[in-house]
Amino acid sequence: MSSSYGENIEVTIFGQSHSSGIGMTLQGVPAGEELDLEELSKFLARRAPGRNEYSSPRREPDEPEFLCGIFNGKTCGTPITAIIRNKDRRSEDYSALKDLPRPGHADYTANIKYFGAQDYRGGGHFSGRLTAALCIAGGICKQLLEKEGIQIIARISSIGPIKDRGELFSSVADKAFPVCDDEMGEKMREYIAERKAEGDSVGGTVECSVLGVPAGLGDPMFDGMENRIAKAVFAIPAVKGLEFGIGFGASELTGSENNDGMYYEGGEIHTVTNHAGGILGGITNGMPVTFRVGFKPTPSITKAQRSVNLTTKEDEGLMITGRHDPCIVPRAVPVVEAAAAIAVYDALLARKREL
Amino acid sequence: MSSSYGENIEVTIFGQSHSSGIGMTLQGVPAGEELDLEELSKFLARRAPGRNEYSSPRREPDEPEFLCGIFNGKTCGTPITAIIRNKDRRSEDYSALKDLPRPGHADYTANIKYFGAQDYRGGGHFSGRLTAALCIAGGICKQLLEKEGIQIIARISSIGPIKDRGELFSSVADKAFPVCDDEMGEKMREYIAERKAEGDSVGGTVECSVLGVPAGLGDPMFDGMENRIAKAVFAIPAVKGLEFGIGFGASELTGSENNDGMYYEGGEIHTVTNHAGGILGGITNGMPVTFRVGFKPTPSITKAQRSVNLTTKEDEGLMITGRHDPCIVPRAVPVVEAAAAIAVYDALLARKREL
Amino acid sequence: MSSSYGENIEVTIFGQSHSSGIGMTLQGVPAGEELDLEELSKFLARRAPGRNEYSSPRREPDEPEFLCGIFNGKTCGTPITAIIRNKDRRSEDYSALKDLPRPGHADYTANIKYFGAQDYRGGGHFSGRLTAALCIAGGICKQLLEKEGIQIIARISSIGPIKDRGELFSSVADKAFPVCDDEMGEKMREYIAERKAEGDSVGGTVECSVLGVPAGLGDPMFDGMENRIAKAVFAIPAVKGLEFGIGFGASELTGSENNDGMYYEGGEIHTVTNHAGGILGGITNGMPVTFRVGFKPTPSITKAQRSVNLTTKEDEGLMITGRHDPCIVPRAVPVVEAAAAIAVYDALLARKREL
Amino acid sequence: MSSSYGENIEVTIFGQSHSSGIGMTLQGVPAGEELDLEELSKFLARRAPGRNEYSSPRREPDEPEFLCGIFNGKTCGTPITAIIRNKDRRSEDYSALKDLPRPGHADYTANIKYFGAQDYRGGGHFSGRLTAALCIAGGICKQLLEKEGIQIIARISSIGPIKDRGELFSSVADKAFPVCDDEMGEKMREYIAERKAEGDSVGGTVECSVLGVPAGLGDPMFDGMENRIAKAVFAIPAVKGLEFGIGFGASELTGSENNDGMYYEGGEIHTVTNHAGGILGGITNGMPVTFRVGFKPTPSITKAQRSVNLTTKEDEGLMITGRHDPCIVPRAVPVVEAAAAIAVYDALLARKREL
Repeated sequence: MSSSYGENIEVTIFGQSHSSGIGMTLQGVPAGEELDLEELSKFLARRAPGRNEYSSPRREPDEPEFLCGIFNGKTCGTPITAIIRNKDRRSEDYSALKDLPRPGHADYTANIKYFGAQDYRGGGHFSGRLTAALCIAGGICKQLLEKEGIQIIARISSIGPIKDRGELFSSVADKAFPVCDDEMGEKMREYIAERKAEGDSVGGTVECSVLGVPAGLGDPMFDGMENRIAKAVFAIPAVKGLEFGIGFGASELTGSENNDGMYYEGGEIHTVTNHAGGILGGITNGMPVTFRVGFKPTPSITKAQRSVNLTTKEDEGLMITGRHDPCIVPRAVPVVEAAAAIAVYDALLARKREL
Repeated sequence: MSSSYGENIEVTIFGQSHSSGIGMTLQGVPAGEELDLEELSKFLARRAPGRNEYSSPRREPDEPEFLCGIFNGKTCGTPITAIIRNKDRRSEDYSALKDLPRPGHADYTANIKYFGAQDYRGGGHFSGRLTAALCIAGGICKQLLEKEGIQIIARISSIGPIKDRGELFSSVADKAFPVCDDEMGEKMREYIAERKAEGDSVGGTVECSVLGVPAGLGDPMFDGMENRIAKAVFAIPAVKGLEFGIGFGASELTGSENNDGMYYEGGEIHTVTNHAGGILGGITNGMPVTFRVGFKPTPSITKAQRSVNLTTKEDEGLMITGRHDPCIVPRAVPVVEAAAAIAVYDALLARKREL
Repeated sequence: MSSSYGENIEVTIFGQSHSSGIGMTLQGVPAGEELDLEELSKFLARRAPGRNEYSSPRREPDEPEFLCGIFNGKTCGTPITAIIRNKDRRSEDYSALKDLPRPGHADYTANIKYFGAQDYRGGGHFSGRLTAALCIAGGICKQLLEKEGIQIIARISSIGPIKDRGELFSSVADKAFPVCDDEMGEKMREYIAERKAEGDSVGGTVECSVLGVPAGLGDPMFDGMENRIAKAVFAIPAVKGLEFGIGFGASELTGSENNDGMYYEGGEIHTVTNHAGGILGGITNGMPVTFRVGFKPTPSITKAQRSVNLTTKEDEGLMITGRHDPCIVPRAVPVVEAAAAIAVYDALLARKREL
Repeated sequence: MSSSYGENIEVTIFGQSHSSGIGMTLQGVPAGEELDLEELSKFLARRAPGRNEYSSPRREPDEPEFLCGIFNGKTCGTPITAIIRNKDRRSEDYSALKDLPRPGHADYTANIKYFGAQDYRGGGHFSGRLTAALCIAGGICKQLLEKEGIQIIARISSIGPIKDRGELFSSVADKAFPVCDDEMGEKMREYIAERKAEGDSVGGTVECSVLGVPAGLGDPMFDGMENRIAKAVFAIPAVKGLEFGIGFGASELTGSENNDGMYYEGGEIHTVTNHAGGILGGITNGMPVTFRVGFKPTPSITKAQRSVNLTTKEDEGLMITGRHDPCIVPRAVPVVEAAAAIAVYDALLARKREL
């Protein structure tokens, strides 16, 4: 099912941007795991809008209500379902768009896919709003991974043409604008502000690292860690590219430059470099799993655009109003972490049945 | 299962580089479909080694034997299984590598994953040899798609730092070295030859287009066309990056630059540009589905490398001998087509149950 | 995942007997299907307690709230989630049973499975209460099947040793005590009343027919209609037996007695008898799909029973108090219909992708 | 996919009765497991025809060739594929039946399902021949379970109206006619011989026990041990009924009669009786898992039957010739064991990821 992920756990995301509620069901987490719901709230707050000046002013408390699956503070083995009500709905904003699909959005493809019966309000099931539910599931998986010594961290690695500098470190998550080099962060913020002032938007990239992952996760062929992470990450709206380790950069190197030489130290095998991003043959080698995600610019811009009226079949200009993030990349950072957490936790459980 | 792909069809790849045979089982193809096995052989020949001077001299006739699933020249509805014998096996080449994993290969990760019981000969299940089986399945799907007016084409888009020029066209598949601009192709071949002479190898990229794909394929979230193609493409050994449309390029643009404006012509909606690679919200919009795949350089090089002896736990130098492609990208072109064909055909069947 | 069913649709059941809510998510229903929620309520009412004197007095309004997936009265293509609050919870009834598993219940197995972290209140996820969620999903599937001319009907075929008489007919569903022969129904009710008076309970069987099912549904081997229905039906608590057509009766016959002879009439092939229950080789032959389900007696009885204290590891007597149906079979009739509806609708979608 | 089973392992059965070969692929078995192929051959021999006078005289050496997945006598972690050639094919026997479906067989339903493109020779994919492949997979799982102290045993519990007597014991597997009471076995053989002499056939039942299964296997709802075993067992041709523990018998009892009282002994919880067949709430309780399977009589009989010519649409009489078992139940005993082994081993791996 397209709104479900996983083999050993199953995450199901439900809801539309303007339905009565959204939520997620997480199945397959073993019973007896303590969950820190306060910690989860903090994680969700990193994705919530209003954290900085560049995010949409729509107020979403986004406090999930857990209906089931948790008993006495621990997972009880059965499906965990949490819901979030959609309180701040201004559906009237969208009625005009029913017949006029927005370029870069899923409006037209949803219309085709769902034979015109789609919930077009605010992007429906395709809305970035749904990533709140993804973050509930991912935030739980992140906690479960941390108990096993596996940490997932991410940062904004570029906004438009501006790149962050330095090595990714874990406390970057505490920043309102999570870059390693705040100077570059300041430039990025200015760049976003300028585009916003023009009624435009901007894309960027997110870099993510999974630290402490043991060797042996992932499987050959279709269930490699790359395949698993890809399936989760491409579920995030606006993602158009994904590369592991040095990724496309490797395609320009020779084998002698790219191969990661091996050495033994402290009872374990390490590699001198980590061009492979910690994955060989789909299986982790004990080095950090690293990947980079490319986000397209927010398609909602207030500049004039070309569309087609689906009823009259006539070309028609389009002006988008309403509240929109000029750049979703800052809020996407925890979402990438969530997607990675789901993929890695699922792979960890898969590994357990072999041991 | 990690060696299986699909939801409406299921492709299962089995075999190791030096086992008695390899093969594939393809389930879920509706009964009554005519298959052109001669056409399939031609497709497989595009992947076979020895097609040009840069591929491994190992001779593989690679003619699949179909055990079942085809009756009177048509699919009969039940699983289609084809096997290829591994005739030209020189297993002694590899015995020395049992304890000395090759950098950039899956030797070490397979050792961990399989507790030392892995078939280490020639890379075992991780060998590029297995892509022959992938191409049987993909070649069948390609034929089935062509009956529905969907064509899949691909080319070498770069080798090392050298990029092909021009627009991808379909007859590029007939070339022994499939680039659009033969002048650039000549430079690529020289570049490969130089690296080979140095005992080194080289990476590259493949660009792929799916033409004639109707709007409405793919699903939201985890089963978007991007997710589906990613799951298939990252199953190809050496793939480290994947981007759709202009991919990472979009992350440097503004929304007004990146959004694909829409217009109506000839009874259908088109977009002025196709930066999205034909996919919005995970669902095809009727424009060509385009993507680019990054391959790392062949990890097998004859230069000295650093490894670790898994028995003695001592660092040890490694010299790889034997037959290896200095660049697998030319042979990977039909493999990318095969992976795309499997993903798109599966999505097409998924769509049929909605109609 | 154990709480999910289906290949082309996916039904997920969540919740525990005394959690804040229970519910279901139904994925994969094509967009644009009108749903009659009033009709659904009537269907749910057939399962609700209090419909006759032999059902538990716990009052459950059981009106589902649909959170998403329905827009303007039609399915909008994305997951349909409905929840029911658990209002009438008397959790204190169960605290004594935490360490003292009830014979015939899943208390002990849940304790083992979930390492003592199970939600033991009222049977948790194993409670018959969860069949309300199954009936939401099944009730929707039933409506969708009816649009395709497929009707699912069921009756009580026996209670304890007392068997119903006559042929199953569709309006039996309108009866508060759904048997074909009301005289036998009266005897069944008396039999239940007597056992109840003794502090005991009683089992029974349900017979179900799927009418109007086209030939060609179901698949060979593991996805035959028998396998599909079995997977759904054994999800109903207390089911211990299942047979198709004349089932175990066929094992006592000869081939000449059991084989269903064929004839042609009205443009279609029919069989003289329907011993096969409409299924051959896992695939429907156009005759009604018929099956019979055996329910064990309600394990909750007020008679003294032998149990073991899980903390002290001492044998301990057990007296169950609280509200319990002396016979769940009458309420199970729509639940069997729901399970069948889910299985058949899923198979119908599977078939569509082949056509 | 309909010819595949499992969640943690995946068994795929391929081939048709008269295709060039049949076989199976088994994925998901952890690496490093020693397999005793001689023991496997003995297991397969129990299913092979010609073991007694009532089985078809077709000679099938049925020695599987393992193509891959085993290396140095151990599983190497990747898919295990074994094939059996179909040597003794007399396809001409079946050509007359192309248009004249045999009552009780899948000929007609296959014709509908596969749009007339089915491989009709000898029942194609629906043939009992395919259970040889099931027994390869099941035989491997049986060995793997035995290493964990889990033993699967089965017997003929009835042939036609004649029932075996006594308790199931494990060495019954060594008998050519596996019943507990040889006197009853003799009567069964006579009964089969009489029916055979009349050109008729006969059904029967098989009883199976899984001994040594730990408490905690199986999951609530759709993945209970009953559901898992049902999905495997209904894949065996001719199975029409399945019951666990005392099964349908429980529906005639009261709760006080049926509930299995519990006691503590030898460090473990036991039940006084085992009416539940070792499963409560879908999860094993540590008692033997017991079930009974009902087989219909072999549909191939030499008596005259009614059929319909699919081309002319006229009613037509049918006389079946050729080689057929008058009773498949004796050969089905190891097949039931195989199905159970696959289901239980899959559940065991599922459990491991929770521990």
